[in-house]
Amino acid sequence: MFMPDFELYTLPNFRLQTGLTLPEAKLAYRTYGALNASRSNAILYPTSYGAQHTDIDWLIGPYRILDSSRYFIIIPNMFGNGLSSSPSNLNEPFGGGRFPVFTHVDNVTAQRQLLRDVFEIERLALAYGWSMGAQQALHWGSLFPDSVERIAAVCSSARTSPHNIVFLEGLRGALTADPAWAGDRFTTRPERGLRAFGRVYAGWALSQAFYRQKVYLELGYSSLEDYLIRDWEASFLRRDASNLLSMLETWKRSDISDNDRYGGDLNAALGAIQAKTLIMPGTTDLYFTQEDSLAEARLIPNAQFRPIPSIWGHRAGNPARNPVDQQFLKTAVAELLSD
Amino acid sequence: MFMPDFELYTLPNFRLQTGLTLPEAKLAYRTYGALNASRSNAILYPTSYGAQHTDIDWLIGPYRILDSSRYFIIIPNMFGNGLSSSPSNLNEPFGGGRFPVFTHVDNVTAQRQLLRDVFEIERLALAYGWSMGAQQALHWGSLFPDSVERIAAVCSSARTSPHNIVFLEGLRGALTADPAWAGDRFTTRPERGLRAFGRVYAGWALSQAFYRQKVYLELGYSSLEDYLIRDWEASFLRRDASNLLSMLETWKRSDISDNDRYGGDLNAALGAIQAKTLIMPGTTDLYFTQEDSLAEARLIPNAQFRPIPSIWGHRAGNPARNPVDQQFLKTAVAELLSD
Repeated sequence: MFMPDFELYTLPNFRLQTGLTLPEAKLAYRTYGALNASRSNAILYPTSYGAQHTDIDWLIGPYRILDSSRYFIIIPNMFGNGLSSSPSNLNEPFGGGRFPVFTHVDNVTAQRQLLRDVFEIERLALAYGWSMGAQQALHWGSLFPDSVERIAAVCSSARTSPHNIVFLEGLRGALTADPAWAGDRFTTRPERGLRAFGRVYAGWALSQAFYRQKVYLELGYSSLEDYLIRDWEASFLRRDASNLLSMLETWKRSDISDNDRYGGDLNAALGAIQAKTLIMPGTTDLYFTQEDSLAEARLIPNAQFRPIPSIWGHRAGNPARNPVDQQFLKTAVAELLSD
Repeated sequence: MFMPDFELYTLPNFRLQTGLTLPEAKLAYRTYGALNASRSNAILYPTSYGAQHTDIDWLIGPYRILDSSRYFIIIPNMFGNGLSSSPSNLNEPFGGGRFPVFTHVDNVTAQRQLLRDVFEIERLALAYGWSMGAQQALHWGSLFPDSVERIAAVCSSARTSPHNIVFLEGLRGALTADPAWAGDRFTTRPERGLRAFGRVYAGWALSQAFYRQKVYLELGYSSLEDYLIRDWEASFLRRDASNLLSMLETWKRSDISDNDRYGGDLNAALGAIQAKTLIMPGTTDLYFTQEDSLAEARLIPNAQFRPIPSIWGHRAGNPARNPVDQQFLKTAVAELLSD
């Protein structure tokens, strides 16, 4: 018997930002640790691109980056990731070639409802995220300023930059070049497209220096080609291609100011964040650059800019196999939480 | 009547580095300016990826970067570019799904034969190149040290770096994800793959800052999407997909030391260059990084490292639409030639 390791929270008649309504939006989540009596020890840790909670919960545990012996940690799975409502699990009239577009406004709105309804949590001790997870953490801080005490935003942005969009367009182009793409849906699993997607991604996710120093050999891969196949192609071959397109669209549209409240005013949207905020780019991240992060940090009232000195590119912020960067994050988060 | 603007030089029974023999290798070339009586004013300017001589000769002219009022400039078209021997023009048993692999050893060997046989040129005043063109210029300096007085190598490398290979693998993956790819050949024109190829390329060729500052608007494009379609997709839609794969393979294999003479010894191959050499990376080039260029420059006895300060990424070295970087190159080349 299959025992899922997550819970499903249902939001009836959930209105998406784009104007469609999901009759039954599903939010899959998992919790770690115990909520204290005053409900003051909650950490929200949303998922990143392509990931499910099991892909990112390595950093949770006693004395880990997110310490489950002291904190109650909730991972809500992003819409589109295959566990929460996604192209792969939606019924008609959605699904097929008519996926709804999810935005981070949808993600954080649903998450807030979950926290209030199920856990009676009104205020987060911390919203922590990497990459698309941090996009959601920043949206929390801007849309619910009173409800977020601290933010740690790792290798991310509040508004997706033009270059980042071009990177995403390359990924989308590679995936939808596949014969299985019928213009609005995949007719079957696009194996070629998924492999190409992995190869395009591989060049962007790590830095030039990571490859120059052949770090993949230290990770146990026998060659560059072995790394491309067993890490990058494998990572995406196990994903649903429509879900990848869905999350890609969420990423591309990520803009903390693109909502009724801020009407496109980025200064206002970032200026509204009251949380003590750590903005932590990787110094060699190729698509969330530290220059972009610094520009955004300057617009957040209570932000500290703290780049991760690393050759791991975007992966500096998800250092499952990189103890040095893990320690950097652990120290930074501990300092933030002790404040 | 179609009047080609180039000459064809035929090399009978041309042995390729990989061990195959082309019964009739064709080298397409064009010359600009006049060769002087002592044959001492020749500049070799090989082509870059995807390009033909007409794509890169904008920088030749009186008082331009390569001054045709004083120098005799030869552009040899690289094997695989559609004018010289290429998948698109080879007869069986080559062509179809059995393209020969061209290396830069093949390119420079054929070019040297052309220069001697047709023009009786024994020594170049300058070998100038950008990107894959500079790979060829550096190969000239290493394989024929007595025959090259100066080298200007712009945004390039003598040996393709591991990260650069990953970038190329992403391009190849995108192109061959297309339905027209039959495993060893294209059955028809891979329109989707070519468009995807252009989108992947777009993210790499310019810097993050180029996109952040929306320079594409200054260039006359009305939006980012307009730029991606009318510049990047258009650039590759007019190319032959098999030729793109052929040149990609040449690039991937580019290694100045991978030949009988140097047997993989990069120090020896770079150390053999006698030419006064300018190594000119772009400071924001994402796939030919200045770090890689500096490491190579240190191994060339008479090299000057002179990075181009520019947000134009790899395009800093081919600044047809960028007067500032043009002036930088013009000054550098003028100083090199006056020495």
